[in-house]
Amino acid sequence: MSTVPTVYHPVNFAQKYSLFSEQWQPKVIARMNDYQFKLARLEGEFVWHSHADTDETFIVIEGQLRIDFRDGFVMLSAGELYVVPKGVEHKPWAEKEVKLMLIEPEGVINTGDIQGERTAQNDVWI
Amino acid sequence: MSTVPTVYHPVNFAQKYSLFSEQWQPKVIARMNDYQFKLARLEGEFVWHSHADTDETFIVIEGQLRIDFRDGFVMLSAGELYVVPKGVEHKPWAEKEVKLMLIEPEGVINTGDIQGERTAQNDVWI
Repeated sequence: MSTVPTVYHPVNFAQKYSLFSEQWQPKVIARMNDYQFKLARLEGEFVWHSHADTDETFIVIEGQLRIDFRDGFVMLSAGELYVVPKGVEHKPWAEKEVKLMLIEPEGVINTGDIQGERTAQNDVWI
Repeated sequence: MSTVPTVYHPVNFAQKYSLFSEQWQPKVIARMNDYQFKLARLEGEFVWHSHADTDETFIVIEGQLRIDFRDGFVMLSAGELYVVPKGVEHKPWAEKEVKLMLIEPEGVINTGDIQGERTAQNDVWI
């Protein structure tokens, strides 16, 4: 008796982006150990914040992102990655909507040490 | 006295790929906490292996990757992600060269529990 192979499905970024349009609300798309992969749409200016306990990875999928630091900035385009070290104050900014992926430990709040109107609901899967 | 802002540089995947052509030799491009981001070029068949202690993330940058499991498979194209759970035997395979990014804890050996001719030098930065 032969068995039929199981076809597993990858996570497709474009398909996941088609499921939401709201900005500043990261959606969890996958988990690796105790880390989460999150997709987000950002436009405009975020708040200054930092994450005391963890680095945070940004990968731009489409568009352009600037991350300001107190002493400078980094510009990211599609196909580029930047790891913001833990404890470093940063402020993401996008002139036009940017699609990005965040990678960070489960439970990290988007606004870090600052709670405010930009603070998103955490752990929302899509 | 004004200070000149520091311009930080992101990691650009295409630029990093331009620096190496060898296959099956993952290159570390960034670190987040105790995790590493690695770029690799694969073509042909890998070996069956598993990682007893960690999940492993595959993101395809260009081309197509198939990952076989004992009970099935997953096909990944550019812009797709798959997390192989820890302990799950898998065998990557690519008919033509595929460019991919691996994300896993520092120190993970590419062939997992199996050492052989496909075992790559670990922790090589580019």
